[in-house]
Amino acid sequence: MFRKTSAVSGLAQTFPGVAVTPKTAEKKAPSFRPAGKSNLKIIPLGGLEEVGRNMTIFEYGHDIIIVDMGLQFPDEDMPGIDYIIPDVSYLKGKEKNILGVIITHGHYDHIGAIPHIMEKIGNPPIYMTELTRGIVMKRQEEFKDKSPLNIHTVKKIDRMRLGSFNIEFFHVNHTIPDAVGLSISTPVGTIIHTGDFKFDHSPISDAPADIAKIARLGSENILALMSDSTDSRTPGYSLSESRISKTLEEIFEHTEGRLIIATFSALISRIQSVVNAAEKYGRKLAVDGYSMKTNVEIARTLGYIQARKGTFIPIGKVNEYQDNKVAIICTGAQGESNAVLMRIVNGEHRFVKVHKDDTFVLSSSVIPGNERTVQAIMDTIYRKDAKVINYKMMDVHAGGHARQEDLKMMINLVRPKYLIPIHGNYFMLKLHGELGTSVGMDPKNILIGENGKVIEFDYRGNGKVTNEKVPTNHVMVDGLGVGDIGQVVLRDRQVLAKDGMFVITTIVDGKTNKIIGKPQVTSRGFIFVKENFDLVNATKKKVEEVITQKTTPNEPANWDYVKNNIREVVGQFLYAKTQRRPMVLPVIIEV
Amino acid sequence: MFRKTSAVSGLAQTFPGVAVTPKTAEKKAPSFRPAGKSNLKIIPLGGLEEVGRNMTIFEYGHDIIIVDMGLQFPDEDMPGIDYIIPDVSYLKGKEKNILGVIITHGHYDHIGAIPHIMEKIGNPPIYMTELTRGIVMKRQEEFKDKSPLNIHTVKKIDRMRLGSFNIEFFHVNHTIPDAVGLSISTPVGTIIHTGDFKFDHSPISDAPADIAKIARLGSENILALMSDSTDSRTPGYSLSESRISKTLEEIFEHTEGRLIIATFSALISRIQSVVNAAEKYGRKLAVDGYSMKTNVEIARTLGYIQARKGTFIPIGKVNEYQDNKVAIICTGAQGESNAVLMRIVNGEHRFVKVHKDDTFVLSSSVIPGNERTVQAIMDTIYRKDAKVINYKMMDVHAGGHARQEDLKMMINLVRPKYLIPIHGNYFMLKLHGELGTSVGMDPKNILIGENGKVIEFDYRGNGKVTNEKVPTNHVMVDGLGVGDIGQVVLRDRQVLAKDGMFVITTIVDGKTNKIIGKPQVTSRGFIFVKENFDLVNATKKKVEEVITQKTTPNEPANWDYVKNNIREVVGQFLYAKTQRRPMVLPVIIEV
Repeated sequence: MFRKTSAVSGLAQTFPGVAVTPKTAEKKAPSFRPAGKSNLKIIPLGGLEEVGRNMTIFEYGHDIIIVDMGLQFPDEDMPGIDYIIPDVSYLKGKEKNILGVIITHGHYDHIGAIPHIMEKIGNPPIYMTELTRGIVMKRQEEFKDKSPLNIHTVKKIDRMRLGSFNIEFFHVNHTIPDAVGLSISTPVGTIIHTGDFKFDHSPISDAPADIAKIARLGSENILALMSDSTDSRTPGYSLSESRISKTLEEIFEHTEGRLIIATFSALISRIQSVVNAAEKYGRKLAVDGYSMKTNVEIARTLGYIQARKGTFIPIGKVNEYQDNKVAIICTGAQGESNAVLMRIVNGEHRFVKVHKDDTFVLSSSVIPGNERTVQAIMDTIYRKDAKVINYKMMDVHAGGHARQEDLKMMINLVRPKYLIPIHGNYFMLKLHGELGTSVGMDPKNILIGENGKVIEFDYRGNGKVTNEKVPTNHVMVDGLGVGDIGQVVLRDRQVLAKDGMFVITTIVDGKTNKIIGKPQVTSRGFIFVKENFDLVNATKKKVEEVITQKTTPNEPANWDYVKNNIREVVGQFLYAKTQRRPMVLPVIIEV
Repeated sequence: MFRKTSAVSGLAQTFPGVAVTPKTAEKKAPSFRPAGKSNLKIIPLGGLEEVGRNMTIFEYGHDIIIVDMGLQFPDEDMPGIDYIIPDVSYLKGKEKNILGVIITHGHYDHIGAIPHIMEKIGNPPIYMTELTRGIVMKRQEEFKDKSPLNIHTVKKIDRMRLGSFNIEFFHVNHTIPDAVGLSISTPVGTIIHTGDFKFDHSPISDAPADIAKIARLGSENILALMSDSTDSRTPGYSLSESRISKTLEEIFEHTEGRLIIATFSALISRIQSVVNAAEKYGRKLAVDGYSMKTNVEIARTLGYIQARKGTFIPIGKVNEYQDNKVAIICTGAQGESNAVLMRIVNGEHRFVKVHKDDTFVLSSSVIPGNERTVQAIMDTIYRKDAKVINYKMMDVHAGGHARQEDLKMMINLVRPKYLIPIHGNYFMLKLHGELGTSVGMDPKNILIGENGKVIEFDYRGNGKVTNEKVPTNHVMVDGLGVGDIGQVVLRDRQVLAKDGMFVITTIVDGKTNKIIGKPQVTSRGFIFVKENFDLVNATKKKVEEVITQKTTPNEPANWDYVKNNIREVVGQFLYAKTQRRPMVLPVIIEV
């Protein structure tokens, strides 16, 4: 499917069903079609006003391409939800127009919605680099009922044409290799999309971001720069991965006991750093955790992780080595409840128990919401006389996103007419916009978008955020259900979580409206019923009163009305007695 | 109740029911009673292995004193819980031995359990400084049914005797004025308890911590130092409040629009800094938020906040001033849902709407768990063309706790035989212990305690953490209920939150065991029932099958057994269909 080409010429690749860029287009003008009357529409379906769920539509006339298809992890107020994917209802009926999906790198916030969405939009061809493909293919195995993906592997030197769009890739740094930025030439001008990026002048087993190419692209009159805002609030430059690598080496050098390093499985470069340190200081390395093992396997097969023969040992063999001759790298640095770190720390791991004087390195930042869990893990480790090194104590983690100075450098390299901050909360987009102003951009040319809001460029290269808004509902994935959980169910879960529920079942004679027997109460999460008989009995009496008052014997009753009354009376009664508001659910059964 | 004394002599105060320290005891020996056979027991009921719920028992023979009585805010896995208070069952039957409760300062993690516990332990006298008293009394107004507290106001120069205990106070810095540390002399030796503290050499409207007095106490053979570990993982020295004050002044100087400063209502010094800046740069200051207004009122009355006449204006008058002539200080910097900041930002505040070019200063750190909410607030502010300054952007917040260098200084000043790190997660206590070792303490003399574990000192001054453990259950306050919510209710809430619930009610003929009508389903938080009739009907059929299989017509049925079967069968069926696990609650009513 992929033919090797000269890296120098950057020749276009042939893909089935994809027009080959003519060689003469190499030094292309920004627009390679006579400017028509169409406007370019850029529609972010996610990733603006939030972190995650990245997906952007580029539409020119009848041609559509899509960049990224990610998921987002749920907020605290979405209990039970696995994750959220973008709403693609805008694409309904436009499936035939979709010429391709381009993925910038292999992180779940950029690939995670692929199995759920691709079939829905007609399974168009999907383009990505080699490592990204490996990760996407592996995940796809969990969705065996879905049609196979039509993946085309691209190289960073490639160019390709998809209808009205001429696409070129450029290499950027991130915490995973094989990440790309995109130059998307359209009839109205060229858009640069950075994907997730940082500049790292000394990355680990990767090349520095291709600044020369970005500069070259920047010399070609860029209409707009869509750039990563995730770390736009942090001053200065981002840390180099080699700084982290150095710290890890120091830790390996000075640690006497066993080393257990927990990190994100997606941080392929970090894993390489650990491999390097292990080899330098004579330790074997065991990998554990499903996603970690999978990613290491993919990355090794494709050559993105380099290790000497014999460095890796199976996790089952760690106990065959002295503590100072072995290290373990595993998942769970965020305190995920079913990850390897948690199992080791809680003594539930089959092979690895915490040894006195083990050193745990938590090589990640802590995602908001996980702090207390991670602190609890640290407590348990210290209780077992082992110790912890985390990013607050030493430089054992670097983020993958450009900081303020990097972002300014990107703007200066690309010299775009418009800046469109992407990826991040609204305030991060705004702060990124301010950086644009600070390097001399016209504030009017900084387009702060919103999810679903169409950004439009006309043939004269004038751009604006329009008032047209396409649907961008949270499509929630919960177990096998995709999109079936709506706000109602979610709100119910929140109420249930807070004060539990109180079901009162009453049987009535359908003719006389007389209550048969006593109302029954089923309550959970509210009070301990067995210790509150008085309250429960008083409530039953309230229910009987309401039914008697709100019905007339031997006349048809409006049971919905009666139930609403019960809900209100019982709710108020329970609140007065307990100052809690359980969900009150009256059930009336006529016999 | 309190008589003014000379600050120089540091004379003992007379309190009703409290022995006056004889003047000759001024240059006291560490023990002032012939050493008996009793051991000193120090029992932390909370505040070790956690942040919050601080309460410690000191017991010598029949004499008991208590230091602090705080609450703790609930974890994410305790939905609906208001807060947690210490378990005082150890004190049951010992009420008569309790000679007094001493409060170190007026923060809720040190005073919050007072209304719930004092009556239970026989309402002993309770000692605190003036400002602390003001705050405690104000809160007590919310608990009108409780017996009045028997509060004695103390000054920092005071000494007092409570039975076997001779107590001296010393001034420390914290984010609230009038915070004290304690020197507790006992027949087996003197214990220094720092309370929450930091050293601030240039505090705002407060004196620097009384290093001279601490040093003097340190010269008297201190047996043990119980010292605040909350910030023991942070290297260096803590920031001075005057650094924050300076930043605030810079912000006031350079801001053109209105200033809205959100902070904790308990940060009295911060409020003073804002007052100073407002006065310096000619702005009126409006205070809003119940707790903020209350604290400002108490602190002004007692002279802990100084302001010129006319500086404060009522919140209802802010719109009478130009934006650059007014500032607002309010609660809600943590994104609390019912606080003033949230109401302003969401346009629900009666007087204050967000103006374009308003500057919001979030003068607090963000407590773990609140990050996303605070980010959402920042998003909303930026959407309204106003902006935010927070502690990540400028020095607008300093914590109230000693950092590593401060902790070492405290150890060096006090030169205790034993170090007992208090206040903080287990790993924080351990890290604090390592600081002790780093300044030359014998690792054997660093006592890392646990909640409820008795620390004992014998008459020769030998101390250890014993294996004796007193109860320290989480006593959860939820609405009017104190301690009635146990693990069962909490676990139910968690299950309900995750996948909702599914109640199936079936009516059976008590004689024949035949089902009358159809089973009824009431479900919330699981699926949207109206869109899932097939699933619901299939489930009803399952229930009918189970009842038919597990009962014999006209023979007495074991309905508990039948219900268990329904729970299992339906649970498995729903999981297979949805991969969700709602709480399945079968209700069977015999008629």
